[in-house]
Amino acid sequence: MPLIQVQMFSGRTSEQKRNLVRALTDAFVQTAGSTPDAVDVILTDVEKSDWAQGGELFSDKTPAG
Amino acid sequence: MPLIQVQMFSGRTSEQKRNLVRALTDAFVQTAGSTPDAVDVILTDVEKSDWAQGGELFSDKTPAG
Amino acid sequence: MPLIQVQMFSGRTSEQKRNLVRALTDAFVQTAGSTPDAVDVILTDVEKSDWAQGGELFSDKTPAG
Amino acid sequence: MPLIQVQMFSGRTSEQKRNLVRALTDAFVQTAGSTPDAVDVILTDVEKSDWAQGGELFSDKTPAG
Amino acid sequence: MPLIQVQMFSGRTSEQKRNLVRALTDAFVQTAGSTPDAVDVILTDVEKSDWAQGGELFSDKTPAG
Amino acid sequence: MPLIQVQMFSGRTSEQKRNLVRALTDAFVQTAGSTPDAVDVILTDVEKSDWAQGGELFSDKTPAG
Repeated sequence: MPLIQVQMFSGRTSEQKRNLVRALTDAFVQTAGSTPDAVDVILTDVEKSDWAQGGELFSDKTPAG
Repeated sequence: MPLIQVQMFSGRTSEQKRNLVRALTDAFVQTAGSTPDAVDVILTDVEKSDWAQGGELFSDKTPAG
Repeated sequence: MPLIQVQMFSGRTSEQKRNLVRALTDAFVQTAGSTPDAVDVILTDVEKSDWAQGGELFSDKTPAG
Repeated sequence: MPLIQVQMFSGRTSEQKRNLVRALTDAFVQTAGSTPDAVDVILTDVEKSDWAQGGELFSDKTPAG
Repeated sequence: MPLIQVQMFSGRTSEQKRNLVRALTDAFVQTAGSTPDAVDVILTDVEKSDWAQGGELFSDKTPAG
Repeated sequence: MPLIQVQMFSGRTSEQKRNLVRALTDAFVQTAGSTPDAVDVILTDVEKSDWAQGGELFSDKTPAG
């Protein structure tokens, strides 16, 4: 029943996603109590052209010097 | 004003989505009270490689049996 | 695995919520295909002082004459 | 820390999105108090075939006469 | 149809919320195109004990300086 | 920038929430790559009377015998 939703920049590999959902599930079970089977994780990729901080899209930001 | 957001596996046809939004809207109006026009429904397709249960992506699960 | 999230004005009774989640689950199963047990529904009550349309909070709207 | 999530129909240009995130950030800072750097904005494009009102997908609606 | 959802720390006054939803709606209409009436805004208050950055709840952070 | 949103049953203690956000942040950083400071976690408590599975609210479910 716990539901963990992750929004992150696109570009993670299948292997990273596989490890990520396992690690998040373990993290929940070990600290908040639950069984792994009850934990749902949904991953959402967000493009840098759809995410802004400080009023500026990440696709427009120049890397720090 | 009621807002119904659905996350489900990709692969439904246009006809299924058409029937789904009508059925969800009817379900809301008949049980919770509202007019159909006030009900918004947003559908989001999620890939099996982005949804996990029990710490395992659905794209990695082997069918039972 | 399908997940249905509902945001609606506060004030529904327990009986309305009970009927609502059953009706939404049935609506999903009958039109999009799934088993009832796989369907999660999460209800969120929103106060009229936290929901706006047309730039005006619903708590500020005067009922139509 | 404030997080602004926008769901809207697909089709906005990069320039519109650029202006939108800046305007939303300014709107938040000027009315609710915060620094621009603390404001995250995430944009989500939704197809008209995934959004319904009144039980009807926007992709099925006929323009008003 | 555009939907703007805001998550922010609790504590804003009714007047701040009133101004916020109007400003966000105006920001959307002026940059992304739409009519004000089509814009929904939902505000969600989050307690500092439910929001973390850097793995630390904001309720646990000591003010800088 | 990664954003982790958790919906879970009410009732966790402050200490459990403190440990949960730290563990989720570590899980993300170690598997998906990022710095801890970039990770936001938002926790949302959901009452059993607002969450259903199989068309039945958790508040109505009788514990398995």
